[in-house]
Amino acid sequence: MTEITDCSGLVTLDDIRAAADRIKGAALRTPLVPYPVTGPDRPLWVKAEALQPTSAFKLRGAYNAISAQIDRAREAGVVSHSSGNHARAVAWVAARLGLRAVIVMPDTTPPNKIAAVRALGAEAVIVKPRERDTKAFELAEEHGYLPIPPYDDPYVIAGQGTIGLEIVEDMPDVDAVWVPVSGGGLSAGISTAVKALRPETKVFGVEPELAGDAAQSKREGRRVVWEPEQTYRTVADGLRTTGVGVLNWEHISRYVDDIVTVSEEQILAAVRSLILDTRVVTEPSGAVSTAGFLAHAGAEPGRHVAILSGGSINPELLAEVMRG
Amino acid sequence: MTEITDCSGLVTLDDIRAAADRIKGAALRTPLVPYPVTGPDRPLWVKAEALQPTSAFKLRGAYNAISAQIDRAREAGVVSHSSGNHARAVAWVAARLGLRAVIVMPDTTPPNKIAAVRALGAEAVIVKPRERDTKAFELAEEHGYLPIPPYDDPYVIAGQGTIGLEIVEDMPDVDAVWVPVSGGGLSAGISTAVKALRPETKVFGVEPELAGDAAQSKREGRRVVWEPEQTYRTVADGLRTTGVGVLNWEHISRYVDDIVTVSEEQILAAVRSLILDTRVVTEPSGAVSTAGFLAHAGAEPGRHVAILSGGSINPELLAEVMRG
Repeated sequence: MTEITDCSGLVTLDDIRAAADRIKGAALRTPLVPYPVTGPDRPLWVKAEALQPTSAFKLRGAYNAISAQIDRAREAGVVSHSSGNHARAVAWVAARLGLRAVIVMPDTTPPNKIAAVRALGAEAVIVKPRERDTKAFELAEEHGYLPIPPYDDPYVIAGQGTIGLEIVEDMPDVDAVWVPVSGGGLSAGISTAVKALRPETKVFGVEPELAGDAAQSKREGRRVVWEPEQTYRTVADGLRTTGVGVLNWEHISRYVDDIVTVSEEQILAAVRSLILDTRVVTEPSGAVSTAGFLAHAGAEPGRHVAILSGGSINPELLAEVMRG
Repeated sequence: MTEITDCSGLVTLDDIRAAADRIKGAALRTPLVPYPVTGPDRPLWVKAEALQPTSAFKLRGAYNAISAQIDRAREAGVVSHSSGNHARAVAWVAARLGLRAVIVMPDTTPPNKIAAVRALGAEAVIVKPRERDTKAFELAEEHGYLPIPPYDDPYVIAGQGTIGLEIVEDMPDVDAVWVPVSGGGLSAGISTAVKALRPETKVFGVEPELAGDAAQSKREGRRVVWEPEQTYRTVADGLRTTGVGVLNWEHISRYVDDIVTVSEEQILAAVRSLILDTRVVTEPSGAVSTAGFLAHAGAEPGRHVAILSGGSINPELLAEVMRG
């Protein structure tokens, strides 16, 4: 599936523009919402991806990957493995396009997330956590399903990159963009778009300290993978993957200026502040980029944008955060 | 100040278009966010005005009124009376345009709301509740300040009407629009814009049962005013005014198809659902329109939009609503 990339194997600005054409009307063109807490020398806006129909940016990549390969998807159906926002996005896109979808989920997935995928008409196949990837691969082999990986895929990277296009279109003089890093689909796509359109804009990745594999990779100049036992400690459950994808790393190592980390306390403080000060509901993973800005933007004056990547917070945690 | 209205004294579509030009770049062009709970025969989108820089639609009317009369505002400053979102909007606009602002607030105003206005550089004048209107009038007379009324003003109505323009532009086939009713600036402006652009679109006003003065007015065909002791019982504190304005009623009686009411329980259930299902934080007043849709849209198939008018909810109430 590298036919959409250039000769270096990387996703290009043209790929991202093609993705923008495909997702138009399906994904919401999310606003840049001002974050009024910061001072005039360093104003911040948040790109409110939590407002997407499935609560997160994942819809963009899933829609691009499926619609770019629509003939195969229509013929055989699609398969994916995820317990979170990507699963819901794939199920939603399949429902919208009238396709069969099979989602492989670990038996540790909360029942409400399994129910949400089934409510969209997808088939949920429940497996042991360690069988998740292999089971999806087996089903694709056996039934010819089109696999829609959560991040390590050029179409998915190009889809997430449409966020970068929109930011530069809406704020042509943006000075810095802060992006949460997990598997690296979002940071690879956005950094590719932003650096192609405005090379002087800085792109910063942000991770929880407890899942700081990409920050370590960036420091050491090589892709480092952490064990699940380490990354599973952070409250930012969307950022617990064990290392960025191989293709993603090729983009991140070139286009992301630096990757910083934030503490659990900083993440939860940003959740509370974003909800009260921008009125956009965020899950912990969605607040990590703003936490990164608040902790690390001191040396960077100018106009900043943080990606508020998703809003799937459970009501109990939201109540707890509001109690302060 | 009727020079912007037509010979009937009503605000026109041209006035609203002029307002749209003035507020461009200051007010956020808010998205229509899909509300995924409703079925395919009656889909709902919410117009997310809670994302405005001052948390509510009030910014539109305040910005239009001040910038349309900028010479006087610049010379003498502006004065307004409000304890809520309008006060904050006037203070914000004055700060942005570098003007003096005086806000008359009753001594029952929560300290954090007084502090918010002062933090924006406005002067807060604290008075007994019954002196609020007269004090603002006196200050305007004495110092030549430009008064910016909260709703009963053609410029304010035209500013709020820009929401109607944006809805029809973003969804040209919209079938019904649900609008919270208080003093009537929002419902007068939106209904004027929507009926001018697409007369077949229905516009429904929604009120709390406990502040149902406009619903009674609509039923009886005459403007009815309730006592503060009645309207102050509702949790929707933005909708506690004691009757729609005189000029507002002229628009509402012509352009709003019907006004319905909702219970306190329906309002709080809608707050919870909007926050979890659209990821837009809403205060109770902002959820009233969606509550109206959920309770009364049964006979109206088609594409619906509800105005989520503001998001200034306090953290304690938000925590309580999330506990369920």
